[in-house]
Amino acid sequence: MTTDATHDPQLRSRVDAANAEGADFPIQNLPLGIFSTPGTRPRGGIAIGDQIFDIAAARAAGLLTGPAAHAAEGETLNPLMAMGNDSAAALRAQAQALLAEGATEALPLVPMSAATMQVPAAIGAFSDFFCSYDHTLRGGRVSRPDSPVPAAFKWLPIAYNSRASSVRPSGADVVRPNGIRGVSGGGATFGPCTALDFELEFAAFIGPGNALGTPIPLSRARDHLFGFCLLNDWSARDVQRFESTPLGPFLSKSLHTTISPWVVTAAALEPFRAAAPKRHEGDPPLLPHLDDPGDRSLGHYDISLDCEYTPRGAARGERIVATHLRNLYWTLGQMLTHHASNGCNLGPGDLIATGTISGPEDHERACMNEMTLGKQPIRFADGTERMYIEDGDRVTFRARAQREGYVPIGFGECTGVVLPAPAWPTA
Amino acid sequence: MTTDATHDPQLRSRVDAANAEGADFPIQNLPLGIFSTPGTRPRGGIAIGDQIFDIAAARAAGLLTGPAAHAAEGETLNPLMAMGNDSAAALRAQAQALLAEGATEALPLVPMSAATMQVPAAIGAFSDFFCSYDHTLRGGRVSRPDSPVPAAFKWLPIAYNSRASSVRPSGADVVRPNGIRGVSGGGATFGPCTALDFELEFAAFIGPGNALGTPIPLSRARDHLFGFCLLNDWSARDVQRFESTPLGPFLSKSLHTTISPWVVTAAALEPFRAAAPKRHEGDPPLLPHLDDPGDRSLGHYDISLDCEYTPRGAARGERIVATHLRNLYWTLGQMLTHHASNGCNLGPGDLIATGTISGPEDHERACMNEMTLGKQPIRFADGTERMYIEDGDRVTFRARAQREGYVPIGFGECTGVVLPAPAWPTA
Repeated sequence: MTTDATHDPQLRSRVDAANAEGADFPIQNLPLGIFSTPGTRPRGGIAIGDQIFDIAAARAAGLLTGPAAHAAEGETLNPLMAMGNDSAAALRAQAQALLAEGATEALPLVPMSAATMQVPAAIGAFSDFFCSYDHTLRGGRVSRPDSPVPAAFKWLPIAYNSRASSVRPSGADVVRPNGIRGVSGGGATFGPCTALDFELEFAAFIGPGNALGTPIPLSRARDHLFGFCLLNDWSARDVQRFESTPLGPFLSKSLHTTISPWVVTAAALEPFRAAAPKRHEGDPPLLPHLDDPGDRSLGHYDISLDCEYTPRGAARGERIVATHLRNLYWTLGQMLTHHASNGCNLGPGDLIATGTISGPEDHERACMNEMTLGKQPIRFADGTERMYIEDGDRVTFRARAQREGYVPIGFGECTGVVLPAPAWPTA
Repeated sequence: MTTDATHDPQLRSRVDAANAEGADFPIQNLPLGIFSTPGTRPRGGIAIGDQIFDIAAARAAGLLTGPAAHAAEGETLNPLMAMGNDSAAALRAQAQALLAEGATEALPLVPMSAATMQVPAAIGAFSDFFCSYDHTLRGGRVSRPDSPVPAAFKWLPIAYNSRASSVRPSGADVVRPNGIRGVSGGGATFGPCTALDFELEFAAFIGPGNALGTPIPLSRARDHLFGFCLLNDWSARDVQRFESTPLGPFLSKSLHTTISPWVVTAAALEPFRAAAPKRHEGDPPLLPHLDDPGDRSLGHYDISLDCEYTPRGAARGERIVATHLRNLYWTLGQMLTHHASNGCNLGPGDLIATGTISGPEDHERACMNEMTLGKQPIRFADGTERMYIEDGDRVTFRARAQREGYVPIGFGECTGVVLPAPAWPTA
């Protein structure tokens, strides 16, 4: 895949909001999602400006034709993901022609303000990686001072299985979990989490996938990275510290995961592909199956990401993180190939995330744990301080793919408000 | 639920093999599974002796009626799991009357030898626990000598998310994975796993489950432990040692997991409920939400489990493990309540497993890692030795619930042969 006429910066849309400076969803983007309106079933749509192009209605009207549109009109995008990137690219090109300035067909457009977004796929599995060197180093200095960066970090993209059932779309409230944490002097107690954190991540939905026992070489990884979204891996740090030896985080992560609901396709991101991650002086060589000199930057893009934090009752949020996808040490292509390298089968709708995307600069610390190190609270303009998230606080991620000569594209919001922990049920 | 007329030891079946001494599937058992025969779709069945009672055919013939039979006749048992244990118990009672000695209706029975068994549910998630003190202690003495048993072990049932997509039914071949392992002196290499192991486990399928944010107190856990099977958590130890810091095992476990295909229901196991696990002198008290004086043994049964190992080319296997479910420190009820205690939603068809069921005795070491400690090979009668599993070796688990005054019931086999690792794909 390369840039083509669908990325032409001169293209404008007949939907005015799509042409606004800084719009997340210009006509060069056209991400896919699942939406519903009151009284209607969830179905596939394409974001354009502040509108949703209703795929099922467009098919019914004969505006969209072919198998990709058919696969994208149902309650999940899994059928389209199973068809792969060429199908999604064809659908994007078809929709682009209809949504372009000058096109005159009557279009089924639904205002975003009238729609509710869903998780875009039935997520069969959610695997979360750990691919930022700086996140690893900062966290490790506290938890593993003798060896802050694990030996494996530079040999493979470290990951764990996370929980798919609790992934929710942007906007869904996050209930503070109860959990077991250690208490100073020994022992443990159960109650509302006292150290709730966010983690700013980027994620990919898997396309066709592979059969059990059949790895995916890096040269074919491109076909299986279908599209991308933002992800907040809400984390209960007190629970995590107590439960994670030796099997890793479990309840500290499965409480809730928020994703931005629009799947930005590989085709739309093509102009923003970035150079391969920098390896450090003295790093080990890439193992051959994770090395691909012809295409090392697969799934690696020029995307800036930020976090806006709104303390309970504050008039407005403040940007507390500004980071960049290029801070990752591994590409999403390498993550995918590693994941399937033991023969593990991945399938349409599976979700893989990068882990917290921290960088070396202070403003690139992409979770509160790194910002405060448990000592120095985050201070907001009005004097409010936070060590961890309090009830009523809102956390919002946004991101932007940008490169000279192309129209920037965005991902929409990944946001959630934290509600108080429930009382333990008594019956 | 208590024992009732369906557990009467005097009951005999019209299917002769069900009445044989030591049969896994006497008329008191009647586990559920999904089977197919050549040219037919997978569908629900009930095991009786060496036969499968075809639920869809029995419904079509008017022999089975009601919503539970309807829910159990399709390609997965998820719909029946969603209905819960009372529905499964009603179906078992209905089937028992038809399969009893003296009943005369013409029955749709399929010989097990003519059927292929499937995984019985669409498994939404597979969570694997770590609940044997002796397994933890033996493994920990090697990997964490300063603190072999993690601080959390006696406070909560430790667990991790494992991989649902690679769970396969008994009999499916297991392909040795490729993976990255550390090499002595530093560095790492990629190639066929050199330390493939088994882990003898017991597992539960979840019934109705809970909504996100709504925990399941222990007093209601009974409704959500639908049924049980055996599980082999095939483990690539060399990969596991290298990859697991700090997020736990990932590719070392997702290569393949084998389960016995028959789901033994909570109703069938009712006579075999065991006393609560013994806590050790000086152990901390149970946290209130994991304590239930009225029903502490929920999901805990008098079940013996063993492993037969057949080295490549051997005429017969040898029993190398004989252990007991009562060796666990936590009950499946406690595992379930802990799992949902942060609000994580569990659903019909989710699978939770106990972890390796080792006990204090030498014959209760339920994985090769514990048996050999990397030093002392397992020696078979003909002089063959194994440190880890070699290509062509077969591993088979069996188990039996037994108590004075009741007919013992079994689980069928959980077996698999290991095939060589594939070459890395070149294109």
